[in-house]
Amino acid sequence: MKKRATAKIIFQPSGRRGEVKKGINIIEASRQLGVDIETLCGEKKVCGKCKVRIEKGAFEKFGVISDLGHAGPWQEEEKKFIIPDQKEAGYRLACATEIQGDLLVFVPEESRAGKQVVSKAARDIEIAWDPAVKLYAVTLSSPTFEDPLGDFERMAQGLRDEFGLKDLHIDWYTLRDLPNIIRQGDWTITAAVWMDTEIIKLWPGRIEDYYGMAIDVGTTTVAAYLCNMRTMEVLDTVSMMNPQCKYGEDVMSRITYHMQTPGGLERMSDDIIEGLNQLVLKACEGTYPPKKKMKDNGGKVVKDENDQPVMVEEPEEGKIYLRLEPSDIVDLTLGGNTAMHHILLKLDPQYVGLAPFPPVVHHSLDIKARDLGIKINKSSNVFIMPNEAGFVGADNVCVLVTEKPYKSEQMQLIIDIGTNGELVLGNKKKLISSSCATGPALEGAQLAFGMRAAPGAIERIKIDPDTHEVDYKVIGREAWLKYSKPEEMQTKGICGSGILDVLAELYRSGVIEKSGRFSLNQKSNRFRKNPDNPRQKEFIIAWANETSIGKDVVITQKDIRQIQLAKGALYTGCKLMMRRMGIEKVDTIKIAGAFGTHVAKEKALIMGLFPDCDLENVLSVGNAAGDGARVVLLDRNMREDANWISRNVEYIELTVEKDFEQEFMQAMQIPHMTDKFPHLEGLVPEEVLQQK
Amino acid sequence: MKKRATAKIIFQPSGRRGEVKKGINIIEASRQLGVDIETLCGEKKVCGKCKVRIEKGAFEKFGVISDLGHAGPWQEEEKKFIIPDQKEAGYRLACATEIQGDLLVFVPEESRAGKQVVSKAARDIEIAWDPAVKLYAVTLSSPTFEDPLGDFERMAQGLRDEFGLKDLHIDWYTLRDLPNIIRQGDWTITAAVWMDTEIIKLWPGRIEDYYGMAIDVGTTTVAAYLCNMRTMEVLDTVSMMNPQCKYGEDVMSRITYHMQTPGGLERMSDDIIEGLNQLVLKACEGTYPPKKKMKDNGGKVVKDENDQPVMVEEPEEGKIYLRLEPSDIVDLTLGGNTAMHHILLKLDPQYVGLAPFPPVVHHSLDIKARDLGIKINKSSNVFIMPNEAGFVGADNVCVLVTEKPYKSEQMQLIIDIGTNGELVLGNKKKLISSSCATGPALEGAQLAFGMRAAPGAIERIKIDPDTHEVDYKVIGREAWLKYSKPEEMQTKGICGSGILDVLAELYRSGVIEKSGRFSLNQKSNRFRKNPDNPRQKEFIIAWANETSIGKDVVITQKDIRQIQLAKGALYTGCKLMMRRMGIEKVDTIKIAGAFGTHVAKEKALIMGLFPDCDLENVLSVGNAAGDGARVVLLDRNMREDANWISRNVEYIELTVEKDFEQEFMQAMQIPHMTDKFPHLEGLVPEEVLQQK
Repeated sequence: MKKRATAKIIFQPSGRRGEVKKGINIIEASRQLGVDIETLCGEKKVCGKCKVRIEKGAFEKFGVISDLGHAGPWQEEEKKFIIPDQKEAGYRLACATEIQGDLLVFVPEESRAGKQVVSKAARDIEIAWDPAVKLYAVTLSSPTFEDPLGDFERMAQGLRDEFGLKDLHIDWYTLRDLPNIIRQGDWTITAAVWMDTEIIKLWPGRIEDYYGMAIDVGTTTVAAYLCNMRTMEVLDTVSMMNPQCKYGEDVMSRITYHMQTPGGLERMSDDIIEGLNQLVLKACEGTYPPKKKMKDNGGKVVKDENDQPVMVEEPEEGKIYLRLEPSDIVDLTLGGNTAMHHILLKLDPQYVGLAPFPPVVHHSLDIKARDLGIKINKSSNVFIMPNEAGFVGADNVCVLVTEKPYKSEQMQLIIDIGTNGELVLGNKKKLISSSCATGPALEGAQLAFGMRAAPGAIERIKIDPDTHEVDYKVIGREAWLKYSKPEEMQTKGICGSGILDVLAELYRSGVIEKSGRFSLNQKSNRFRKNPDNPRQKEFIIAWANETSIGKDVVITQKDIRQIQLAKGALYTGCKLMMRRMGIEKVDTIKIAGAFGTHVAKEKALIMGLFPDCDLENVLSVGNAAGDGARVVLLDRNMREDANWISRNVEYIELTVEKDFEQEFMQAMQIPHMTDKFPHLEGLVPEEVLQQK
Repeated sequence: MKKRATAKIIFQPSGRRGEVKKGINIIEASRQLGVDIETLCGEKKVCGKCKVRIEKGAFEKFGVISDLGHAGPWQEEEKKFIIPDQKEAGYRLACATEIQGDLLVFVPEESRAGKQVVSKAARDIEIAWDPAVKLYAVTLSSPTFEDPLGDFERMAQGLRDEFGLKDLHIDWYTLRDLPNIIRQGDWTITAAVWMDTEIIKLWPGRIEDYYGMAIDVGTTTVAAYLCNMRTMEVLDTVSMMNPQCKYGEDVMSRITYHMQTPGGLERMSDDIIEGLNQLVLKACEGTYPPKKKMKDNGGKVVKDENDQPVMVEEPEEGKIYLRLEPSDIVDLTLGGNTAMHHILLKLDPQYVGLAPFPPVVHHSLDIKARDLGIKINKSSNVFIMPNEAGFVGADNVCVLVTEKPYKSEQMQLIIDIGTNGELVLGNKKKLISSSCATGPALEGAQLAFGMRAAPGAIERIKIDPDTHEVDYKVIGREAWLKYSKPEEMQTKGICGSGILDVLAELYRSGVIEKSGRFSLNQKSNRFRKNPDNPRQKEFIIAWANETSIGKDVVITQKDIRQIQLAKGALYTGCKLMMRRMGIEKVDTIKIAGAFGTHVAKEKALIMGLFPDCDLENVLSVGNAAGDGARVVLLDRNMREDANWISRNVEYIELTVEKDFEQEFMQAMQIPHMTDKFPHLEGLVPEEVLQQK
């Protein structure tokens, strides 16, 4: 009998199932079947986040007989994350487990890549109106035997006579619309002209309002702004998780995925393009009247043939709905870090990950939406922000065109903390940039109970210095633990913005010392040795009965080291850049990104993340990357600024700077700088400050 | 029982068969099954060329029971072409016959759209070397920590430093190749740069030779030239019938097809694009070693698994083969008349066919090959020649950039006779153009036995003035009738270049009179009344036993009128333009197109096709349209000339000129001008000239 080349897989609790090729691992199968499993390390078997449980038994309904023996052999790396009891119960790392036969795979809650809460709303920023795409309406005479001029030349002549637009050309797709639109409008026509040179859309008659989108493609989150291009109004902000997350949480994992997977680059690119199309659709749908349930028809709910209640449009009274279609979007700008930029554009990102990290291209690009597969107006040119360097990308350029340090006298330090830290220092005289390997710890990844900013994540914490008792708050729930029943918390882990809070409180309350080590003077039963690894010490933040995962949520000595490494890298970066610039103090620190929005500034200062600065001059500038994409959408001069920035900000590779390692070791200590911050007195108890 | 919605169709003698939807006509079915049936009128039921015979009987092998009753009802229009006896035998017009059930359809030889013999070889013309696409090779330094410049900027800097190329940008598809090609060549790279601005292809290392194609899209024939862009050498000339011929032989039929058929424009465009791709492939294949049959393997032919002899490459000894792939073609230029231009570009051609005939666009267009679906180098820009007017298109611009009357002191008249006559008159001071509705008669269409220039077509003829006996020559056979057995001739009809010969000989020999009427003084039994229509008189050119169609090939009084109309239109056009220009005589007449190559100049003068000109100044300039596409391929300055021409040649609509009808009536007489041509004496017998 011939052996089957495929195996049937069921994922629980989602119930997704299907046939996959034998020989692939469970992560790959989860991708193919649309199940999200956390893979922070990009299947390198080092993060231990993708634990799953193989169930034994016959699942007749699906013709599946699942058995531990259907999973490939146990791997050395799994020992680190799966204790013998768990192994006995069928636990495996999904990335280390080859599929050799039918399997039913249970994905525990903590291994599921949950929906993220995104907080990337549009900020009020000043933008000058000078978009790349502008509208011009003209009324023309119709052709005669005496004047049989062609349609395009007739329109171009009208636009030249009336608006001084010279040497216009027209995209082929728009040209195809011309003969019928010009007659439909009875020789009155409105043209969308890109950069005063190319006609990219036509409407019969005269219209005034038109629409564009600015999109920030983050490693984790993609945020899009729908704008009225005439009024500059932000009509809607929509966002989603970057669908590439399933190929690895951070930039390097995705580059690795590309290098190890034939067709991987195309797959990741297609996924993000598909994601952008979903965002465009979502933004357009927001301009439609809301659909509501038809309440009744003589007291009875009206149902369709599938027995589903029929939904009807119930527009708000008096409100005018735009009803935009994707083809109404005439301009689109995109920003992202260099790796996201390269992957989206199918540019080989491997050299960005290899010293000396040259990008494939710095300069901005104008690419037809249709070439990219982005389903907006077909003739439109998508503007891709320029890159500064391999690790300082278009997202940083976005931040700079928004904050404009190159026009300021003030010495500014701009910090964008994502998976990587991107730093810019300078003013109108000089600007330097660098990146520092903060790692994902400040975002909550690679920690025992780190997670993304999703419901159930601890985001705020207080530790009583006298009792070491803990109070905390999770995302998705208003009430702190103190005001809740334990089982109401449904805690799952600690998110990025909570990490620094945890560390600051651990230190402030005396649970840990300056060096990061746990204090010998513990006041509660929360401090313990890890049951499975007695050499690892940990502090319990949430007891199992407060969680939805049935386990104590702890922070380990290793976790604390990770955060120390991150903060050390960041601080060292700042300090070495200041040394290069020959300054001792900066006038302003601006923190961009979600981290800046969520973190308490004083806690960051206590932890010594940034150099010396007055607290009131430490500013959070929110999603400046997204704002930057909006700036270049509405003011084309800023596109030139962006290109200027990309070539005139000097990139410094920190790791080859003198004294890098020494500075780094020093910077890992906490609190590094409290003695320099007299205004912080009182925030840190005296006994703590006295510690050696 | 449910009725079948489809019917099985077999075409004979080709044997092609398949299922088609009931309700479509036989022409549509022939298209779907890839059978070529002549449709000169574009299915308007007026040309009678698409006669087919429905067979009765059961064709068990295919499960088809064919019956006359399976064809839709007889149409009024068919009476004109099908006599009662033929009707009885199952003859129908394919375009008038709806399919209502299974049918076996026999396509008689004269209804088959045969393979055309195309004579569009490349002429030696002078072209200055300045192509739009040029190659530049540079050797670069590799990136370091001190110089981590991105790949594109590194290359651009090298090209600027070495060749002064500034502000270069790069097509996205080529950018995607950059990082790996630049490393493959160890930082030496050759770039193809379009118009000094855009990089459209890259090669590792240094290369010198590169390739382009120039294509002339005629209504009937498409001819392509493959050129070495460095040496300007024409490597190959390939051609094919325009695949759109199946939608109608002339421009107006195709415009009508578009207006009457939803999706018709897209279908015609897709067909010609597919045709262009075939030509590109064919030209590339010509650069490969020929494949020859493997003669034997120990005396035995080697066969493959399908029992076909295995073909092997047997390159000529000492010859170096290029082995070009379509992606090696880096530039492509396209010319054609306005309707062909519009249909290829999916621009609505209906207004080109409606007074005052404005085209959608005059100016040249640069369209990405990938947008057009033309499978050459993806990043390449296809150059589309500009149009002068609705009926004087890019093909005429091609002629003008080749002949350059706008740079000459001489007063030139340039005549391009296709289905339409396109005329240009002038010199460096002024140029005017017009088109005249010669109709397809001069190309042999719409005549009783007119056909394209295919094997079996009469192309030369002599008629003895004393006996009215006929001698002739057909395409595809060297020997004249006089030196052949009748059955060797395999005559099928009369082609365009033969028509004028026939008419001149009919007149010279006294078979017809000055007015075009048949003479009363007939000397042979070749003159007769049409058996089916006694009011129609006709002269037998070839007896049935000389033909492959089993019928006498005749020229009718109506045919003669058609040719008179054509020549009258042409002559009137020339004369009215000369009047506009205020001249009585031109210095040179240049005849472009296949017509000019094939027709005997003196015969054209006898017939009064052109105005007064010395015989030695009447020049045939061959396929000047194709040459023009080659000129703009190799000399980009000529692209500017082309655009200048398209807007500075004044188009004159002849039909609204004063005295048009009166001039036209006069010009229909033959011979119109012999008295003005003393040097023609002797060519026309005295007795003929004496006729009133």
